[in-house]
Amino acid sequence: MSSESNPKVVLAYSGGLDTSVILKWLCEKGFDVVAFCADVGQHHEDFEAVKAKALNAGALKCVVTDLRKEFVTDYIFEALKCNAIYEGKYLLGTSVARPCIAKEMVRIAAEEGASFIAHGATGKGNDQVRFEMCAQALDAKLQCIAPWRDAEFIESFKGRSDLLAYCTKHGIPVDAKPKSNYSIDENLFHTSYESGVLEDANETYEESMFKMTVSPQAAPETSTTIDLEFVKGVPVKLTNKTDGTVKTDPLELFMYANEIAGANGIGRIDIVENRFVGIKSRGVYETPGGTLLRDAHMDLEGICMDREVKRITEGMGIEFARLCYNGFWFAPEMDLIRYSVDYSQRDVTGTVTLELYKGNIIARGRTSPYALYNPDLASMDIEGGGDNFDYNPSDAAGFIRINAVRLKTYAALRAKTQE
Amino acid sequence: MSSESNPKVVLAYSGGLDTSVILKWLCEKGFDVVAFCADVGQHHEDFEAVKAKALNAGALKCVVTDLRKEFVTDYIFEALKCNAIYEGKYLLGTSVARPCIAKEMVRIAAEEGASFIAHGATGKGNDQVRFEMCAQALDAKLQCIAPWRDAEFIESFKGRSDLLAYCTKHGIPVDAKPKSNYSIDENLFHTSYESGVLEDANETYEESMFKMTVSPQAAPETSTTIDLEFVKGVPVKLTNKTDGTVKTDPLELFMYANEIAGANGIGRIDIVENRFVGIKSRGVYETPGGTLLRDAHMDLEGICMDREVKRITEGMGIEFARLCYNGFWFAPEMDLIRYSVDYSQRDVTGTVTLELYKGNIIARGRTSPYALYNPDLASMDIEGGGDNFDYNPSDAAGFIRINAVRLKTYAALRAKTQE
Amino acid sequence: MSSESNPKVVLAYSGGLDTSVILKWLCEKGFDVVAFCADVGQHHEDFEAVKAKALNAGALKCVVTDLRKEFVTDYIFEALKCNAIYEGKYLLGTSVARPCIAKEMVRIAAEEGASFIAHGATGKGNDQVRFEMCAQALDAKLQCIAPWRDAEFIESFKGRSDLLAYCTKHGIPVDAKPKSNYSIDENLFHTSYESGVLEDANETYEESMFKMTVSPQAAPETSTTIDLEFVKGVPVKLTNKTDGTVKTDPLELFMYANEIAGANGIGRIDIVENRFVGIKSRGVYETPGGTLLRDAHMDLEGICMDREVKRITEGMGIEFARLCYNGFWFAPEMDLIRYSVDYSQRDVTGTVTLELYKGNIIARGRTSPYALYNPDLASMDIEGGGDNFDYNPSDAAGFIRINAVRLKTYAALRAKTQE
Amino acid sequence: MSSESNPKVVLAYSGGLDTSVILKWLCEKGFDVVAFCADVGQHHEDFEAVKAKALNAGALKCVVTDLRKEFVTDYIFEALKCNAIYEGKYLLGTSVARPCIAKEMVRIAAEEGASFIAHGATGKGNDQVRFEMCAQALDAKLQCIAPWRDAEFIESFKGRSDLLAYCTKHGIPVDAKPKSNYSIDENLFHTSYESGVLEDANETYEESMFKMTVSPQAAPETSTTIDLEFVKGVPVKLTNKTDGTVKTDPLELFMYANEIAGANGIGRIDIVENRFVGIKSRGVYETPGGTLLRDAHMDLEGICMDREVKRITEGMGIEFARLCYNGFWFAPEMDLIRYSVDYSQRDVTGTVTLELYKGNIIARGRTSPYALYNPDLASMDIEGGGDNFDYNPSDAAGFIRINAVRLKTYAALRAKTQE
Repeated sequence: MSSESNPKVVLAYSGGLDTSVILKWLCEKGFDVVAFCADVGQHHEDFEAVKAKALNAGALKCVVTDLRKEFVTDYIFEALKCNAIYEGKYLLGTSVARPCIAKEMVRIAAEEGASFIAHGATGKGNDQVRFEMCAQALDAKLQCIAPWRDAEFIESFKGRSDLLAYCTKHGIPVDAKPKSNYSIDENLFHTSYESGVLEDANETYEESMFKMTVSPQAAPETSTTIDLEFVKGVPVKLTNKTDGTVKTDPLELFMYANEIAGANGIGRIDIVENRFVGIKSRGVYETPGGTLLRDAHMDLEGICMDREVKRITEGMGIEFARLCYNGFWFAPEMDLIRYSVDYSQRDVTGTVTLELYKGNIIARGRTSPYALYNPDLASMDIEGGGDNFDYNPSDAAGFIRINAVRLKTYAALRAKTQE
Repeated sequence: MSSESNPKVVLAYSGGLDTSVILKWLCEKGFDVVAFCADVGQHHEDFEAVKAKALNAGALKCVVTDLRKEFVTDYIFEALKCNAIYEGKYLLGTSVARPCIAKEMVRIAAEEGASFIAHGATGKGNDQVRFEMCAQALDAKLQCIAPWRDAEFIESFKGRSDLLAYCTKHGIPVDAKPKSNYSIDENLFHTSYESGVLEDANETYEESMFKMTVSPQAAPETSTTIDLEFVKGVPVKLTNKTDGTVKTDPLELFMYANEIAGANGIGRIDIVENRFVGIKSRGVYETPGGTLLRDAHMDLEGICMDREVKRITEGMGIEFARLCYNGFWFAPEMDLIRYSVDYSQRDVTGTVTLELYKGNIIARGRTSPYALYNPDLASMDIEGGGDNFDYNPSDAAGFIRINAVRLKTYAALRAKTQE
Repeated sequence: MSSESNPKVVLAYSGGLDTSVILKWLCEKGFDVVAFCADVGQHHEDFEAVKAKALNAGALKCVVTDLRKEFVTDYIFEALKCNAIYEGKYLLGTSVARPCIAKEMVRIAAEEGASFIAHGATGKGNDQVRFEMCAQALDAKLQCIAPWRDAEFIESFKGRSDLLAYCTKHGIPVDAKPKSNYSIDENLFHTSYESGVLEDANETYEESMFKMTVSPQAAPETSTTIDLEFVKGVPVKLTNKTDGTVKTDPLELFMYANEIAGANGIGRIDIVENRFVGIKSRGVYETPGGTLLRDAHMDLEGICMDREVKRITEGMGIEFARLCYNGFWFAPEMDLIRYSVDYSQRDVTGTVTLELYKGNIIARGRTSPYALYNPDLASMDIEGGGDNFDYNPSDAAGFIRINAVRLKTYAALRAKTQE
Repeated sequence: MSSESNPKVVLAYSGGLDTSVILKWLCEKGFDVVAFCADVGQHHEDFEAVKAKALNAGALKCVVTDLRKEFVTDYIFEALKCNAIYEGKYLLGTSVARPCIAKEMVRIAAEEGASFIAHGATGKGNDQVRFEMCAQALDAKLQCIAPWRDAEFIESFKGRSDLLAYCTKHGIPVDAKPKSNYSIDENLFHTSYESGVLEDANETYEESMFKMTVSPQAAPETSTTIDLEFVKGVPVKLTNKTDGTVKTDPLELFMYANEIAGANGIGRIDIVENRFVGIKSRGVYETPGGTLLRDAHMDLEGICMDREVKRITEGMGIEFARLCYNGFWFAPEMDLIRYSVDYSQRDVTGTVTLELYKGNIIARGRTSPYALYNPDLASMDIEGGGDNFDYNPSDAAGFIRINAVRLKTYAALRAKTQE
């Protein structure tokens, strides 16, 4: 069916309705299609079935790559190192997966000699931007096909019934399940829910929607206590103090963090956020393990990181989040930020103890061999700063008076100008 | 006992052991002491008893001022408008009270013809800085007396037993209660706990310590649902949808927010933070109402505030928090920040629905007459942006390709330089 | 020639080759063309001739609007208030003119009932972005026609000879002058030169290129000394102390600033800058009056503006410059920035004396009724701060020691971790 | 005269009146004084004479260290790498020398077994802060003696005549020259002038004051053209194209940059700046070589550095300047900034050609093997971006429309809210 002379495209393929239709449509357009399925930890995904479905729909081949380990160590942990959060709430669960997937897609395109990539992302969203920005940064010659931005495609498929009719016509099997009331994106880091019934920002979601977390209400009455150990800002050991489970492998550690945080109702958010394309959008997310690790990491920074270094890296974290959210992972400014953040983590080594209970992460202790925290220095009951540190309270008087010089000068001017 | 020729000092007086000793000590030093007790909403404070105690200890007079309303509207709500948070966690409960108290203290000093003020804050902490910076900004000629920085005072009172002995000697009644294991600061906005046993950052606190919140564990199994209405960033109405209670007066609204949030186990934090004097310090805080209102306000901004305005005001909030924490309330840069933040709140009007449950604040809906959120524009199911808005998905292709120009140029250079 | 049923377009028309061709081309496409010529202070422009040319080429009408005064007061002075500079060098001479022109263009479109606007800006540059962003912000329904992004137009006019041939064919008179070796944009604020021979960033320009300035070499041997008076950050009076000339009208003042600065070789720059579309571009600019006024304004801020207000507004100036450069004049974040900057200028009132000599602007003095500068306070020879100000040098010891607390703690950690 | 049991102090000694008096005063106080004289490139300093003077005044020994090379490579070049400038004008000539001197002073103190350091800086200025902050960061146990903050010292020496009388009494030879009308600080990077007659910010300085530069007026009529080559942001070669001189050694290169820039009237500034202690101060500086190298470096960044990397490092440069100015050289946040800036300079390699003429630095060309500047991409005359780069002008339409989405949404809201 394919020929040497057909252009080749690598399609990000999920096996769902949209990408199945796109796969066939690309074949009809004369492309040889290599379906690519990234395993970034989707739940209960049967990759063999997906593969069969792709081939059945006309794909030349279907490549499934297990990116889970790389996703955890090179993407999720990078975001956690700078406590990245978008608009104060969103932990970037989808954003951070896109460069990981795009990188593999570009690698496959090179391997397969494809000069096109395609995806099923909508023309109003962030994912199209992230996929294509990453792909173009990694291989400027690759061309991107986005059917949901293609006038002809959009005209052909105006609603779900058109997609279903096309499947029927081409013998593409379709899930018996009716369409979900919202759109879902799943990976190890989070599951996101948006669109459909969720578009009414004044309505809440159904409890049954969630895949990774129980609700705080449904979480157990007894809490789970854990120790989280970090080395240079990276989680290296998770110990469940309640049942003795220990995880040190990054992927296992992260999956276990998801498991226990999810079981305790941790990590749901519901926000109206700002997409890079200028549209506000309502999203509901569950990020159990990520929420837990980020909290623990920030807590540890409290005892290990200098105040002004924290101030500067707080700004870098905001920048990282924006860049990541907007698709600028493989960008020079992102390289600079990540390089700088790494330096800030030199001493972020230690252990945090946390209790997980019905949606709450309760800090129960933190310790570090590199602590800048010095209880003797902080103590109101100890003069000075203990051994080797001569904090003299009387110095504070001068500190205050000098800091007030500007304020007094300004007040004098204000008094004068109001006369 | 006092005379025309004695210098006069206004002492921030709590009726506790330290300020009682200080009051007497100042008298002995030849000052006429005006004790000043600010009512910023401490729990169960009996101000008549405090007044009597002050006079008994030798105060010329004791002034109690109810600052609660002003504290809520001019300080707490100002902080909430910019979602102020220090080092990502601390809601500034003590920081924001200090300028409110200092302002009244300066007013009383002027009224009483006092040229000194005094306080019982430690020489290692933030409060000395905040009190004195505010006082100096408001009246540059006022002199500040801080006995806990005074070498002679420190020498005389090396421990609690010295303070008690002094009280006994001077007939100052002392609470029968033994010393608390930590230090407490209370006001409407929060209660803070630090020092003493809390100095071990790897140990948790006792549950019995808290005054404003129950623990998530102890909170009721049934949740409370509320509506919070804001006008221009300021809370104007709180409706308990579960029992129908409605509050619109700012002080009542805030106190009620404390009540219901506290009852649902909301608003505790435990951190190691960085003091302005360069010392790291462990603090435990409970800020029930503030946590609730801040969450609601941020949620509302999601639908009402432009993305870039949010980005800029997010930075202003960080700046506000740092200035407030460090005592720069009456500073020219704070005036600028507050003025700018006000402008950013022009359209932050609307209502947020929240469910409170065992430490969790769960967004259940938000609506605004000034919403920038447009579900038709966001929808994947609707072409364009609905009526009057011509969003064309195909534009995104150009948007992406232009944004990638820099990235491709950079990648080409990197490829070249790595040859 | 036109008819009721033809769509109407307002074309930004200069009378040059490109826009003359575009005018005709639009007519051929079936548009009724309203030519619009903004007078923003181009040199020696004969607007009557331009008008005649437009009508001759087929325009329905030609509107010339004198925007010079508005350009100075509402755009140039706004930029100067925050010392706006792009990438440390470019004073935004073209950027700041675009919103001024676009606003008038949108007004004319409304008046004329046109639903299209058109311009002759290139598809690689910033001006297309600025024009269209401003127009869309002001009237979301207006459609923008940019022939230099139109595939058919580009195909038809591959080079200058195609344009000339088209003119000949349609009887459009063309300047006898051969094509310039570079592209020019002129207004009151600056003249810019780019493209053509200037694209070689390693080659300099010809001296004959400039219109507003002489070279430092050609400037007179004798200097000119002026006083510049500002009120709330806005220039209100320029006095030439050498010859007694005084200007107070904003437009006259600005034009005179151009004259004397240009005559003294002031305000040329030559840079490689970063366009919003991701392309680096080499530009040569002359901004004589703007350079002079900005320097004077910054100097005045030195004595009138608080250090921390300066720090914050320095950031706002950078933001303003980026927004303005990128076309976000009529954007919510720009409104916020401008509102905030205005507040920062409350006390920026006073007079600066400057000597202009062969490219140099030499500060010779500055004075302000609102000066925060207090020579007695600064003086090493005066104890304290003079009357009413008790600066005590011994306070500095405490100030330093407290500031060093963090540094000592960090050094101790570093010493330990390197063991 | 000294004894084993005397405490030892290292005094930053210049040989001038103040430090000569201080030296003797310290001896009288019972200290063994090690005079330390840092050679950071002061003009015409006779270090042998200074040494003799120190010994004669009672110093135990006098150590002179040539720090010039280290000063250039580890301090000046670090500042130039991030284009550091304080408050938009001051190149940090004194600020950047202080950590260099303090580091050596601490080294000598350790070598000599001294537990004190002393300096002659005033109690109102920045230098006391810088010296002592650096010293405390490097050796927390060192104690700092600042006689000009000592009440007894200040009482003893109320004016210059007291200092002179003290010298006479103790046989300390004094320069015959009358006191200068201002205070001077000299090093390789700059000479600063402040205080005295310069305190009147509305008066200019005398031309005779300057040591490193001629005035633009006095500079030669013929210009000097140079090539400046950088590798990773550091100047490595300066070629005088007019006379063929070439310098590659960092110290020689920098001294030669001073020479030619100074000879051409380059690098003077006159500002009112904000000291860290909250005082505004008027300073006049000449920084010939630094001004030249900084200009060249910024120009080169224009072709080599990505736009967003530039945006971020522009912020880092501002931070660097503030930290350096305030004495935080050996601070954790400074380490982070410097580490990050280094990364940003990876590709800042190339050559800039500049013409120096009567105070002007005129860019005449720049070239880099790592240029991100691509003239074909920038060109209006070339479709696309030349070989290998598919810039499509039509993409800009989508780019603009998507960027305008927010603006249109906001405008619609504004229109509605103003009804």
